[in-house]
Amino acid sequence: MSTGSAATGPHVLRRINATAVLNALRDAAGHTATVSDLVVATGLSRPAVTRALTALSDAGIAEFSGTTEHQIGRPAQRARFRAELGHVAGIDIGPHKVLAMVADLAGNVLAERQAASPPNPDMAPVLRTVLTEVAAEAGVTPADLWAAAVGTPGIVDHERGEVVLAPSIPGWSSLPVITDLRDWLGCPVGIENDVNLAVVAERWRGEAGDNLLFVQWGERIGTGMVIDDKPYRGASSAAGELGFIDLVTDLDDEPKPPADGLGAFERLVGAGEILRLGVQRCDRELRDRLTTDDDIAPLFDAAAAGDPAAASVVDTIATRFARGLAVQLLIMDPQRVVIGGGVSRAGDVLFDAVRRRLSRQLLVPVDLRVSALGAGNVALGAVRMALDRVEERLTAML
Amino acid sequence: MSTGSAATGPHVLRRINATAVLNALRDAAGHTATVSDLVVATGLSRPAVTRALTALSDAGIAEFSGTTEHQIGRPAQRARFRAELGHVAGIDIGPHKVLAMVADLAGNVLAERQAASPPNPDMAPVLRTVLTEVAAEAGVTPADLWAAAVGTPGIVDHERGEVVLAPSIPGWSSLPVITDLRDWLGCPVGIENDVNLAVVAERWRGEAGDNLLFVQWGERIGTGMVIDDKPYRGASSAAGELGFIDLVTDLDDEPKPPADGLGAFERLVGAGEILRLGVQRCDRELRDRLTTDDDIAPLFDAAAAGDPAAASVVDTIATRFARGLAVQLLIMDPQRVVIGGGVSRAGDVLFDAVRRRLSRQLLVPVDLRVSALGAGNVALGAVRMALDRVEERLTAML
Repeated sequence: MSTGSAATGPHVLRRINATAVLNALRDAAGHTATVSDLVVATGLSRPAVTRALTALSDAGIAEFSGTTEHQIGRPAQRARFRAELGHVAGIDIGPHKVLAMVADLAGNVLAERQAASPPNPDMAPVLRTVLTEVAAEAGVTPADLWAAAVGTPGIVDHERGEVVLAPSIPGWSSLPVITDLRDWLGCPVGIENDVNLAVVAERWRGEAGDNLLFVQWGERIGTGMVIDDKPYRGASSAAGELGFIDLVTDLDDEPKPPADGLGAFERLVGAGEILRLGVQRCDRELRDRLTTDDDIAPLFDAAAAGDPAAASVVDTIATRFARGLAVQLLIMDPQRVVIGGGVSRAGDVLFDAVRRRLSRQLLVPVDLRVSALGAGNVALGAVRMALDRVEERLTAML
Repeated sequence: MSTGSAATGPHVLRRINATAVLNALRDAAGHTATVSDLVVATGLSRPAVTRALTALSDAGIAEFSGTTEHQIGRPAQRARFRAELGHVAGIDIGPHKVLAMVADLAGNVLAERQAASPPNPDMAPVLRTVLTEVAAEAGVTPADLWAAAVGTPGIVDHERGEVVLAPSIPGWSSLPVITDLRDWLGCPVGIENDVNLAVVAERWRGEAGDNLLFVQWGERIGTGMVIDDKPYRGASSAAGELGFIDLVTDLDDEPKPPADGLGAFERLVGAGEILRLGVQRCDRELRDRLTTDDDIAPLFDAAAAGDPAAASVVDTIATRFARGLAVQLLIMDPQRVVIGGGVSRAGDVLFDAVRRRLSRQLLVPVDLRVSALGAGNVALGAVRMALDRVEERLTAML
């Protein structure tokens, strides 16, 4: 093992070993493992693992259990990562809602809470309230949080931790919200584009491969790419704006800037347009359900059950979506496409139709899947981003 | 220095040093340098550089010169890389022509020759004739070549060295042409997608940055991407097919497969369509020139000189091209766009119009440039690819 550093004394080596054992313990089932398990997982010697566990235990990061079960031979001493030692928050500031999650240090989500609120420069009180409530549900206070991360639409400047461009949200750029959150929480608060966080969640808990196109399909449409197992954000952190491609304006006309903040492709296949087409084409019973609940789920249920009007909406949307997605696939040639976001709940009735249309427009086949992560994927990605910040603090305790 | 290998004896180290000196010598102006220059360029000691030069000279790879010029103090002994020691060929098999170049081992192009021929499974005799002629012009025979590389439209399987899909060229897939060329030349013959080779040339001699979109715009339209300073080819080597995106078929219709092998966007803005619009709209004098020469250059000259019909063609093409390019820019967010291929010769009258239209459709600005490499860029990229194969042979001589 080479650290490439001059600081290679026994103290440093022990900290490296302890970090390796910590990671193996956290990733084990139930965050619990025997010394033998950890020897296998880390490749360290039994004495080195035992020393590392002692250090983790002294720091309060791990605890021993199972020593009382004396069986034949040596007792099978088990160690457990004390995931409850600290907490992080992941926050999704979406176009209509704030969704906050609190997780322990192993990434187990303990509580989540949602508040209806469009993003706006004066939303600090809303954020404070949601965070106070969700922290309480997880048994802590906001001041107990070790780190937090926020996902939001728009192009994020990672250096400055600011939204530099969010065409969909008037007044959302260069917000003081993150600064306020940092001051109030007194812990590191990261910020990232919402779709990029959905990709982070997909790589952590989902369907990712090392060359992936992820499409977040809801009111808005954004995409995130993973190339060579790394997120690809583009030269200005502005890659993946499929929602803004224009497939409808007559070619010899000049495209008009969007009046409603939605990109041209979002206006064509976003959840708002799906609802509009449903209300326009479906019979009164379904129409009433769509308008009352402001939810597109009944439309897809009706289409799956054979309702011809609902099926015609699905057909229109599948045709349009496949046309736009084909463009990005012809350009990127990813190994896999994963669809997340609200519309991903539509199920096979929509996605089988998309797959059929795609196959006729591509030069090479593609593996299209629906994400299993549901509507919490951005907040979950934010939890993962916050956990990355926590690792430094844990290591510093050793 | 760590080699990560058990083979680290003095012999191996000397070969590593000799290779470093060889590379520095080849890259020096005139492929000539003093020992002091090479000490600076390689970071090696003066005795190590002298030993390496002696080895290169013994192998016939370098030669000494300038030792007779006794000045005050020590003679400024100069060494020169013997670029004439061997030769490579770069071959562009385009939709209508074969263009072959022969270069020396430093990449200086000594001769180039073109033959009119569409790609076809029986074209081995054409290739042999062109290569024999271009080699003779460079003062060698085809059997003298150390390596060759071929650029061709289509999706190339690098493992098998075959074209696996070329929608534009009937019968071009799984060709025996490369196998025939290997047997005939008796040297390594690489194959690569033509646009990817144009990108290689751009990175070698042109305008590349570490995040680049290169657009080859001629009869066909293909794009190559450089991401993190590496060519990006996609999961199936099928990335960058901008020529196949469809911006015209009514969204609720099913796009039809192309009858003429051209992709939808190629049909809209390719050189063939530019010529067609010119013939359709321009007055008889210009029309006659366009049809006689089968060349679009007079059209852009006329537009630049204020001919309203020619200007209207440029306007139409700029509008359409900007719409398609905007799609790829919204998805990729590159730092720089470089336009190559035949249409890139159109000059500012076209590209200023493209830039104006692009700026209104993008979320972030982009730096759009016209390649300085001209129509030989694919063959030049093939020369570079062949040179990469030569390095092994040079090293083995040490």
